[in-house]
Amino acid sequence: MPGAGLVERNSLTVVAPPGEFVLASSERLSPIVVAYETYGQLSPDRDNAILILHALTGDAHAAGKSTEADRVPGWWDPLIGPGRAFDTDRYYVICTNVLGGCYGTTGPGSQDPSTGKPYGMRFPLVTIRDMVRVQRELLRHLGVEQLVTVSGGSMGGMQALEWAVTFPEMLRSAIPVAAPGRLSAQGIAYNEVQRLAITQDPDWQQGDYYPGPGPARGLGLARMIGTITYKSDVSWSFKFGRTFAGRRDADRYRWSGEFEVENYLHYQGRKLVTRFDANTYLYLTRAMDLHDVSQGYPAYEDALARARVPVLMVGISSDFLYPTYQQKEIVEIRQRLGLPAYYAEIDSPFGHDAFLIEFAQLERIIEDFLEILTPD
Amino acid sequence: MPGAGLVERNSLTVVAPPGEFVLASSERLSPIVVAYETYGQLSPDRDNAILILHALTGDAHAAGKSTEADRVPGWWDPLIGPGRAFDTDRYYVICTNVLGGCYGTTGPGSQDPSTGKPYGMRFPLVTIRDMVRVQRELLRHLGVEQLVTVSGGSMGGMQALEWAVTFPEMLRSAIPVAAPGRLSAQGIAYNEVQRLAITQDPDWQQGDYYPGPGPARGLGLARMIGTITYKSDVSWSFKFGRTFAGRRDADRYRWSGEFEVENYLHYQGRKLVTRFDANTYLYLTRAMDLHDVSQGYPAYEDALARARVPVLMVGISSDFLYPTYQQKEIVEIRQRLGLPAYYAEIDSPFGHDAFLIEFAQLERIIEDFLEILTPD
Repeated sequence: MPGAGLVERNSLTVVAPPGEFVLASSERLSPIVVAYETYGQLSPDRDNAILILHALTGDAHAAGKSTEADRVPGWWDPLIGPGRAFDTDRYYVICTNVLGGCYGTTGPGSQDPSTGKPYGMRFPLVTIRDMVRVQRELLRHLGVEQLVTVSGGSMGGMQALEWAVTFPEMLRSAIPVAAPGRLSAQGIAYNEVQRLAITQDPDWQQGDYYPGPGPARGLGLARMIGTITYKSDVSWSFKFGRTFAGRRDADRYRWSGEFEVENYLHYQGRKLVTRFDANTYLYLTRAMDLHDVSQGYPAYEDALARARVPVLMVGISSDFLYPTYQQKEIVEIRQRLGLPAYYAEIDSPFGHDAFLIEFAQLERIIEDFLEILTPD
Repeated sequence: MPGAGLVERNSLTVVAPPGEFVLASSERLSPIVVAYETYGQLSPDRDNAILILHALTGDAHAAGKSTEADRVPGWWDPLIGPGRAFDTDRYYVICTNVLGGCYGTTGPGSQDPSTGKPYGMRFPLVTIRDMVRVQRELLRHLGVEQLVTVSGGSMGGMQALEWAVTFPEMLRSAIPVAAPGRLSAQGIAYNEVQRLAITQDPDWQQGDYYPGPGPARGLGLARMIGTITYKSDVSWSFKFGRTFAGRRDADRYRWSGEFEVENYLHYQGRKLVTRFDANTYLYLTRAMDLHDVSQGYPAYEDALARARVPVLMVGISSDFLYPTYQQKEIVEIRQRLGLPAYYAEIDSPFGHDAFLIEFAQLERIIEDFLEILTPD
């Protein structure tokens, strides 16, 4: 098995009663368990760690396979392993499931110690900064106080940039991919209609559907809406065009008839429902809405100026969800302030999803950057 | 009262039993009533008529006011009236509610003569071409066999182009605005998630909700999704940015807190629900999915070559729903075939909605075109 090989999900309680974790909302949370995976070995000097952060429906399984039988490896596998961009012969790569998640880290599906039942919507709102602060606690437990870099795409990119704002002294660099420094109004709008799709499903039951399947139709619809924003007009046209799924031309004039693109969307919706928690979808999309690195600072510039180390912003040419002007603006601000900042663009027709597709380009971008940062 | 003044909605039964109208689906429909308005006077030679066609949630009320008390005039009022682009001192302007509509023309809310109850989802699927063929029947009843031009935006633009394909001999020109010649896969995708928002609402009741209010929450959500596609990232940022609606900063960490952009979306959803029929929303979005002027012709080029008269395609610079390449492609094809074709662009940050906003630009574009077409 090439790449990171067989990997194992670990889990650490980073906050335990009577300890509490104070969230951005001022609410207190305890205990907090974090699920994570690691690839490669931590050096004796503990100076070779890299933190990888996942997107909305991702998990801690970024590389390798969990069992020999797995058909697909982790979500950033082509970038993580011996000789790959995040070279596990050199680096100790850590990936964690976010706070609020549904893949092992404490979230709305976890047991609320005050009631003995799942939190549901009684789970406190969390922010991208809260996620990052919980990750920092995990690193403390792992004995890691320095990171060669921190990277991730989409919501993972938001966390990577937030790391450069909240804990800049722990970083030697950061590589946020396809992410804004603060969510745009359009981004909030897309998230809100997805949340409504879930909360308007009667099976949502105000979030108290555990251990039942929950709002499957609502979550499916949310995923379908999201899927549109992850692609591009060009990629939809190229992949499906106006191809009709029906066998006979007359089928197109029946409600039962479906274009291939509809077929695909429904498939994406059904697929997510089997593996994701609807309440987590609500909490993580809200965390993205609230994402604004300038929160608590006088201005956007002040937050972006916190990291004195190189920050590489990666944009995607066809991304209309978090368009490239959002990454370029961050680079321009930092350059204006005399701080090291670089911009690289993934040239792709695949839209936002390109950060999970265009591995050859990403590999070159990341390798070149790390090479300059840490020459042999 | 300036403009078209006080106007009246008329209604004509254009197909009556035992007569039947054969739809693209081969299904038969009868009776068919068409609601319409007219502005200006038909000339003795019956050679000054212009047909105006509405978008998804529009109606026959394109200009003037229906009562003195109306606060807002028809949806294209700034373009229709004495001295305006569609000059009612010169032209006889007709606007009709589409087949499948809910503003007076036969649609899913109409009474099915075979049951005496509203059709609901037993109404046959209709196409943009069916709409146009019904409009042609209306013109026959009005004694109009020639049109100076035919125009409309979005779904109205699809009809305008379809006129140039199905009845080119009746036209002296056509001005489709912000519309494709065939809906893209992305367009179908956006429509499908909007339909699902409606049909997943239990209050939809498989379409048999009449005379009740129907799936208000589902229709509201559909409208909210649609609204995102009618705007642009820039216009959302300009209008709302990240402004929070709550009074205190702490409100942003509560589920009850709302960004202004969410507030606005909810308002748009609620507003449509009070005035629109959910089943009509399903039928008209499906008609758009099925829109492909090449249907029944060997190729797209063959359909677009049908009109020998000038066709002016109008695009909107920031439209990501029906991007300008779709209008330009039509012009390029016609020009390659040696047929009169022109392209004009509305330069606007407002996205697809610009066809209902940028009246100064539209006025100039239309006036210039009609001036060349029909010099005094």
